[in-house]
Amino acid sequence: MEVKDVLFMSKGDGESSFFQNSYFTQKVVAMSKPALEKVVESLVSEDFSSYHVLNVADLGCSSNSTTYAIMETVIDSVKRKCKELNYQIPEFQFYLNDLPGNDFNTLFKGLPNFVEKYEGLPCFVVGCPGSFHGRLFPKNSMHLVHSSYGAHWLSKAPRLMDKEGLPLNKGKVYISKTSLPAVKEEYLAQFQEDFSLFLNSRSHEMTRDGRVILTIHGRLSEDPIYELTWEPLAEAIVDMVSLGLIPEEKLDSFNVPYYIPSQKEVKDIVDREGSFELELLETFPIKEGDKSVWNSHEKYIKNLRSFTESMVSHHFGVEIVDKLYGKFAQIMLRDLATHTEPREVISFVVVLRRL
Amino acid sequence: MEVKDVLFMSKGDGESSFFQNSYFTQKVVAMSKPALEKVVESLVSEDFSSYHVLNVADLGCSSNSTTYAIMETVIDSVKRKCKELNYQIPEFQFYLNDLPGNDFNTLFKGLPNFVEKYEGLPCFVVGCPGSFHGRLFPKNSMHLVHSSYGAHWLSKAPRLMDKEGLPLNKGKVYISKTSLPAVKEEYLAQFQEDFSLFLNSRSHEMTRDGRVILTIHGRLSEDPIYELTWEPLAEAIVDMVSLGLIPEEKLDSFNVPYYIPSQKEVKDIVDREGSFELELLETFPIKEGDKSVWNSHEKYIKNLRSFTESMVSHHFGVEIVDKLYGKFAQIMLRDLATHTEPREVISFVVVLRRL
Repeated sequence: MEVKDVLFMSKGDGESSFFQNSYFTQKVVAMSKPALEKVVESLVSEDFSSYHVLNVADLGCSSNSTTYAIMETVIDSVKRKCKELNYQIPEFQFYLNDLPGNDFNTLFKGLPNFVEKYEGLPCFVVGCPGSFHGRLFPKNSMHLVHSSYGAHWLSKAPRLMDKEGLPLNKGKVYISKTSLPAVKEEYLAQFQEDFSLFLNSRSHEMTRDGRVILTIHGRLSEDPIYELTWEPLAEAIVDMVSLGLIPEEKLDSFNVPYYIPSQKEVKDIVDREGSFELELLETFPIKEGDKSVWNSHEKYIKNLRSFTESMVSHHFGVEIVDKLYGKFAQIMLRDLATHTEPREVISFVVVLRRL
Repeated sequence: MEVKDVLFMSKGDGESSFFQNSYFTQKVVAMSKPALEKVVESLVSEDFSSYHVLNVADLGCSSNSTTYAIMETVIDSVKRKCKELNYQIPEFQFYLNDLPGNDFNTLFKGLPNFVEKYEGLPCFVVGCPGSFHGRLFPKNSMHLVHSSYGAHWLSKAPRLMDKEGLPLNKGKVYISKTSLPAVKEEYLAQFQEDFSLFLNSRSHEMTRDGRVILTIHGRLSEDPIYELTWEPLAEAIVDMVSLGLIPEEKLDSFNVPYYIPSQKEVKDIVDREGSFELELLETFPIKEGDKSVWNSHEKYIKNLRSFTESMVSHHFGVEIVDKLYGKFAQIMLRDLATHTEPREVISFVVVLRRL
């Protein structure tokens, strides 16, 4: 399974769409806003007189409206800093990237309103279909690259099989308490390969001193075991297997193409790749199922479905999806009720400067 | 009615989609291919050593695959000429433009195949939603702009009312034998305004000596009366009115936002706008209903529906559309049978150089 061929956030703007279930994404964007403002102000202060157009990319923008909030933050910060320094405001070219299966039609529905808001300001927006695990833009063209909750996706799930071709991670879909050390190693190796490729691709595309600002799912512990989301998903799939609705081999050959790194793992990859200097690495916790983020547990669960469904459906078949997510919701609600002290989802905000 | 809010080619890839009914567009692209090749070769010969990326736009690309054929022609011509002159092949950035309501999801489906074909060549493709009757790209950025059968669309239908607010073009939807002189004047005035705006917008975006290559619907006669497509469409609507299915006022307030200019009208607008030199204006006739183009009369009629349906449906209501196009097909088949000597559809290929 190549992730670029199967992964997308649920389409359209209906009840189960990602468009309607992006509370968390909005929270993440709000969380990284101060860092984004600071990055833009630095860019303007440093060497802005030579820009006539500011090229900005949002990688893994999906189809919801948070990408418009990001563009607004960039424009407003540039305008504010230009006014302060008495610089001329440049033209803006925004590149909104996601995989070719992304719902660009829904994404573009928000565009006329956005353009109207900034009438008179030369601000251009394009959609850029492709995988960020590879080149997306011409060399030496990009000044600022933003990505929110994208760079922890892997280009493919690690190959978790032993020498005999038998599954290494039976009954699980991510690194679990019972997972063998080899499972942890393969996941980290895949993340190292993919995040290095991400950085190397950007290094060709960015101008000197251009900035990358990423928000990714991260962890504080040294151990990569993660019990939220993927553990209940595995449990729901196991239940389908026990009901005879999914063959066991299907479960055993499924592992999510997603990795939750530690700060040290991120730093090491940046250092080894060598094109970027790490300017900032901040940590933000969000409480699991936090009602100020998700409004209700049901919405939290719908959110989890909206970004996992495409790969689950691709692997297990579209006909099992509703049943599977029904079970998943039951398990999630049980878990949320059990943990009176809510667990935390950790995010990293990472700022990199192109050397 | 603002055309940018309502016009799109029929979506998806089903039987009545534009994607499946673009024989004519393919023919038009084949027709203009030699001119496109020549333009690209000129660009390469003139001042290519300074390019590290060649920026190319296709305006009004719709959702079918002809835009890929255009990109292929550009890439192949550049490669051939670079080889001949011993120049390094640049990177390519293609901007595929259409109105925000265009089906970009279907357009992007063809992208993975295209990118695979040119593997190893840095070739980037983005979708650019917006109206070409206005700015689309940063200033001084575009080297080559292509547009096939787009620039004869108007930004809105001319306001065809007399001083009392009564309709000037009763029972018709375009310039007809019975149309008043004022109808002709208003149509030409709208085309002059829109095509000037098109050229002026491009003049800001293009580099010096950059080229625009357009294929548009044109006419050889001095008189702008046009009896194909719009006349049978008017007749079908009149029939719906006589059946009481469409109120007469609805017909009287509908005129197509489309103009078929003469060579002289095009030349005059280019001269008056002043940013471009006309390098070429060639004429190509295609026989109406030509079986080598459309395969069958039924496909020809489906093609006419696929590019007119969005505006007809917006104005008259989606519930009348099938009935109306049923009648339209009857009228078309009658007309095609009557004219044993097929009438001609004229196209202009226009090449402009940015001064």
